[in-house]
Amino acid sequence: MAIFASCQEQKKTTASPEERVVSDPLPSWNDGINKDAILTFVKAVTDSTSTDFVSVEDRIAVFDNDGTLWSEQPAYFQLFFAIDRIKAMASDHPEWKKQQPYQAILEGDMKALMASGEKGLLELVLATHTGMTTDEFETIVSDWVATAKHPRFDKPYKELVFQPMLELLAYLRANDFKTFIVSGGGIEFMRPWAEVVYGIPKDQIVGSTIKTKFEIKEGKAQIIRLPELDFIDDKAGKPVAINRFIGRKPIFAAGNSDGDLQMLQWTDSRGGKTMKLYIHHTDSVREWAYDRSSHIGQFDKGLDEALDKGWTIASMKEDWKVIYPFEMK
Amino acid sequence: MAIFASCQEQKKTTASPEERVVSDPLPSWNDGINKDAILTFVKAVTDSTSTDFVSVEDRIAVFDNDGTLWSEQPAYFQLFFAIDRIKAMASDHPEWKKQQPYQAILEGDMKALMASGEKGLLELVLATHTGMTTDEFETIVSDWVATAKHPRFDKPYKELVFQPMLELLAYLRANDFKTFIVSGGGIEFMRPWAEVVYGIPKDQIVGSTIKTKFEIKEGKAQIIRLPELDFIDDKAGKPVAINRFIGRKPIFAAGNSDGDLQMLQWTDSRGGKTMKLYIHHTDSVREWAYDRSSHIGQFDKGLDEALDKGWTIASMKEDWKVIYPFEMK
Ligand SMILES: [Ca+2]
Ligand SMILES: [Ca+2]
Repeated sequence: MAIFASCQEQKKTTASPEERVVSDPLPSWNDGINKDAILTFVKAVTDSTSTDFVSVEDRIAVFDNDGTLWSEQPAYFQLFFAIDRIKAMASDHPEWKKQQPYQAILEGDMKALMASGEKGLLELVLATHTGMTTDEFETIVSDWVATAKHPRFDKPYKELVFQPMLELLAYLRANDFKTFIVSGGGIEFMRPWAEVVYGIPKDQIVGSTIKTKFEIKEGKAQIIRLPELDFIDDKAGKPVAINRFIGRKPIFAAGNSDGDLQMLQWTDSRGGKTMKLYIHHTDSVREWAYDRSSHIGQFDKGLDEALDKGWTIASMKEDWKVIYPFEMK
Repeated sequence: MAIFASCQEQKKTTASPEERVVSDPLPSWNDGINKDAILTFVKAVTDSTSTDFVSVEDRIAVFDNDGTLWSEQPAYFQLFFAIDRIKAMASDHPEWKKQQPYQAILEGDMKALMASGEKGLLELVLATHTGMTTDEFETIVSDWVATAKHPRFDKPYKELVFQPMLELLAYLRANDFKTFIVSGGGIEFMRPWAEVVYGIPKDQIVGSTIKTKFEIKEGKAQIIRLPELDFIDDKAGKPVAINRFIGRKPIFAAGNSDGDLQMLQWTDSRGGKTMKLYIHHTDSVREWAYDRSSHIGQFDKGLDEALDKGWTIASMKEDWKVIYPFEMK
């Protein structure tokens, strides 16, 4: 809350923060119906004279991460993390040279890796994400995020976030929304970097979890990451996690794939004025173009329902002036 | 953030908010070493020139609920809720007249109810807390909280909160702490009323959970509460839940029983300046007196460790001027 003392005697020589009105809170969004829809929605729910007004504690906004706040091609970035971990750990595991899916990674055979299917990928996650304390895992993730680079852009993964979405997050927060991530990605894979990158506190970052165990070892309290899945925060898991972690229905939800459909349906079910936003990957030049038949971020049933119900579908190619922050330099 | 324009010309006739210094942020706490410990801790971690300074995002404070923020005698208030639900549902369940633990409740036989043990109590919880949508359960809890009264005080349960703890919560928040509840109680039993009563947002209320399922029924999205335990937020479960829901180690933790010991150990393990506060139920007149041998809120191992490590142990009888807000009227 800003508190102002008024002094009529004093001549104003500079604009107060309130007078420097930001004329466009979404400068990286092209003018058009989708940008209008966002601005109109936020004005309606924050206007105390509007019948659509929503009180501050109910201004909950949830965002998917992969493909919604940052890119997810040519594979989920968390998979690149797991691959890099396998390579780093390989010297301690000579058996991996003849054992899938490890062999595929060590030989750089992405086709064989993908052939190992969900079962193989789950094994990879458990082999690389568990068996250490939560403190140790946080350090591993932080080191990787600081050093690893994306194969196409040769930039740190955390620079491949979407500038228009950073503006949208900031715009919602400036209007007293509480912003959350609700992602299929690992909760402890995101928290070490997402807080700073997106301005979202760790306790507002929700994701998939593995089981953990508290113990006292040599007089020191620690939490161990166990090789067992706890919860997959995807599809019907997303509203379940929203209910468990947030405890109220969002009035705003953004996603990019069928994995977000139930989260958007849950938001829609709240009644009153709500916004359901899908990000459509339509830019094959600046980012990637994919939807109905993609193995990553498939957008098929969600696209049908969004079209049917008139939800907002933002096209990265048409609606976004820039994709990544580094394009603005 | 408060922004002030200074105007030397203007004569001040009324005190500004900053000048109306609240001399005592904890008026219901008696002066003494425990009140001093709290004030000294908060000053140290919020003084940017202190070596104990903690940045705002790390000012996480966690509170147990039963016995720490409100009373828990002669039984956990959530058990009274379950008992009232059994009575309300009994006409639809004629078989309960001859089936424990229901028969004990319907006949008002608390001894037989307690004899049904943990298994019986769990059955009660599942029978009364599941099988409906989350929306329906919220309404049931809200109606009960609005009407049910405590057998000893003949007042709504939500009035049996501890005035000194309300002041402590407000004091920490005024110093940019983010306050959380981490309770063994049901997360969806607490959220409908605790937000208003304690000033803690729903997404900062952590507790035990049952499994839930998202579904679309007759075109409407809903979440169903299933008759299966998901997670018990007690003892070693508390640090696990803190890690999952909050994602950083607290610098302040308050509890009242052995069920909070691991949460306080986890807080202590953070290093740097932290505060571990135990509330000791020592007032047999104004509240209840119990500790090492109590069936509810047993405080034995935790008391030993607190004494051994020099944690703060507040005595309700000695340290608190009043227990409940209604005593002040
Ligand atoms: Ca996605
Ligand atoms: Ca307790």
